[in-house]
Amino acid sequence: MTASLGEFDLIARYFTRPVRRAALGVGDDCALLPAPAAGEQLAVSSDMLVEGRHFLPDVDPEALGHKALAVNLSDLAAMGAQPLAFTLALALPQADALWLEPFARGLFALADAHAIELVGGDTTRGPRNLCLTVLGTVPQGQALRRSGARPGDDLWVSGTVGDARLALGHRLGEWSLHATAQPAAFARMDRPTPRVALGLALRGVAHAAIDVSDGLLADLGHVLEQSQVGVTVAVDACPASPALLQQPAARRRLCQLAGGDDYELLFTAPPTARNAVLAAAARADTAVTRIGQIDAQPGLRLIDAQGQAVDNVYAGFDHFRPDPTV
Amino acid sequence: MTASLGEFDLIARYFTRPVRRAALGVGDDCALLPAPAAGEQLAVSSDMLVEGRHFLPDVDPEALGHKALAVNLSDLAAMGAQPLAFTLALALPQADALWLEPFARGLFALADAHAIELVGGDTTRGPRNLCLTVLGTVPQGQALRRSGARPGDDLWVSGTVGDARLALGHRLGEWSLHATAQPAAFARMDRPTPRVALGLALRGVAHAAIDVSDGLLADLGHVLEQSQVGVTVAVDACPASPALLQQPAARRRLCQLAGGDDYELLFTAPPTARNAVLAAAARADTAVTRIGQIDAQPGLRLIDAQGQAVDNVYAGFDHFRPDPTV
Repeated sequence: MTASLGEFDLIARYFTRPVRRAALGVGDDCALLPAPAAGEQLAVSSDMLVEGRHFLPDVDPEALGHKALAVNLSDLAAMGAQPLAFTLALALPQADALWLEPFARGLFALADAHAIELVGGDTTRGPRNLCLTVLGTVPQGQALRRSGARPGDDLWVSGTVGDARLALGHRLGEWSLHATAQPAAFARMDRPTPRVALGLALRGVAHAAIDVSDGLLADLGHVLEQSQVGVTVAVDACPASPALLQQPAARRRLCQLAGGDDYELLFTAPPTARNAVLAAAARADTAVTRIGQIDAQPGLRLIDAQGQAVDNVYAGFDHFRPDPTV
Repeated sequence: MTASLGEFDLIARYFTRPVRRAALGVGDDCALLPAPAAGEQLAVSSDMLVEGRHFLPDVDPEALGHKALAVNLSDLAAMGAQPLAFTLALALPQADALWLEPFARGLFALADAHAIELVGGDTTRGPRNLCLTVLGTVPQGQALRRSGARPGDDLWVSGTVGDARLALGHRLGEWSLHATAQPAAFARMDRPTPRVALGLALRGVAHAAIDVSDGLLADLGHVLEQSQVGVTVAVDACPASPALLQQPAARRRLCQLAGGDDYELLFTAPPTARNAVLAAAARADTAVTRIGQIDAQPGLRLIDAQGQAVDNVYAGFDHFRPDPTV
């Protein structure tokens, strides 16, 4: 019937693979998935990545394939949800196999690592834009919400924060990283690790969780707002990579507190659960660090290693505001 | 905590409404939905709409809000799925209340008409782009797939086809519509009606279904390919609006067979089910017309009212090819 094979069909080839768990994948009007088991809720999240805003035009397409899925899996992780499947909608200025092949490779490598399938989507011509929707499952009542933080809770963060912003600053020419420090920082910016295993392990342990995408303080602000609590953050306790520890203190704090793109989990748990948190982190093979305490008093207070107040000059990231100057 | 209210927050306001059926809506890392009942499958579809490709820059934003959801609901309709919820990811060059307010109004009016909720999404700055993902449910084994057409099946289409293309041609200056013909044609282009009720009524009646988005013959081609059958289409039997019936035959056929944007259901059912099809159409309050027959012989054959062969000069639409010339 189809006499000529359009570019559209060529693109579809990169993203059409036999489905294993889904009843029906790419190629019909909808994908069909088995319903979650009784007592489970469905978790859904959509993220849109725009060229020039969320990734640079010359980004390695394989890294972008990884990252596009990683940032969505990070949302599932922050809910304590088990990843189930995802869809991809893709606008591209032209169909370019040299771009599509590595992009699909990066995307599917991460999907395979989490045993989830691409079940549908859309491809169209337009300014480069990726929109992924991930689906996951979580037992009823066990999701980690932003609204669950309680006064007295410890504030924890996974991994290290600030490296993605450190790498971005180097790439934008804001500062220069030593050659030996570049690979690790670039890897954190280009191939973030969604903390899915940690999110699952924190079910029933953490009171509240969010992933750090817009910056630690900006995302913490969402928890405070939705939980109607305040917080005191020990800024020098925030875990930093070796490369970041070598930076001037002002730059390090900027990267850690306002950098964003970390995709670490920021979560709260009662002090009585400290051993349980550490056990969950060990099960998930993910480091966690205690960086503050939730207060009944509203507001965000920053203190340094000596307990002295630190001015909060770290504006939240807003895609419709210019980025804060460095 | 948040000292200034960013444009981002302003945008979120237009799309944040209390959820009724979902456990958790916009404002956390993920939305949470009750799992479908036992024996149901989850249907998922994503569509991306790009300015200049899927809608004109000066489109009425209220109509666009309607259409963005309508085209996604149409995918659920084509599977026989009951709509459940949707997410919206939105890239905009700037946050403009004069655009956002009517857009949200059009979107929510259709959502309310189908009793579904916006449960999450994303907003960012970028070239205008809308990506919606819809979720629905369908009893196990009852989904209307593209692969179910059988030789001897009747080919049916709902409503009328070709009006959206007729309106587009007028707007692009390809031809000129009489003033009295414009409102009806524009309404079909700008506010398509997803045939959700018909899709539900056709469960257990139709063998295969698809919605007409890229053009009747292009979409029919997907059914033929996936069902491994051929078809004979009586081109003059394709249902046309009064305005389209007044057009020259060549233009009418182009609009009907290769126009696209109709969002009608194209489906097959055995001749023994003709009364059941008509009863389903009556229950759904949607006209249906028999326009051809599925053949064992591969290929797409077009015949006119006299049974004479009609050349198939109607290329399928491909977002990565230029549109066919008129």
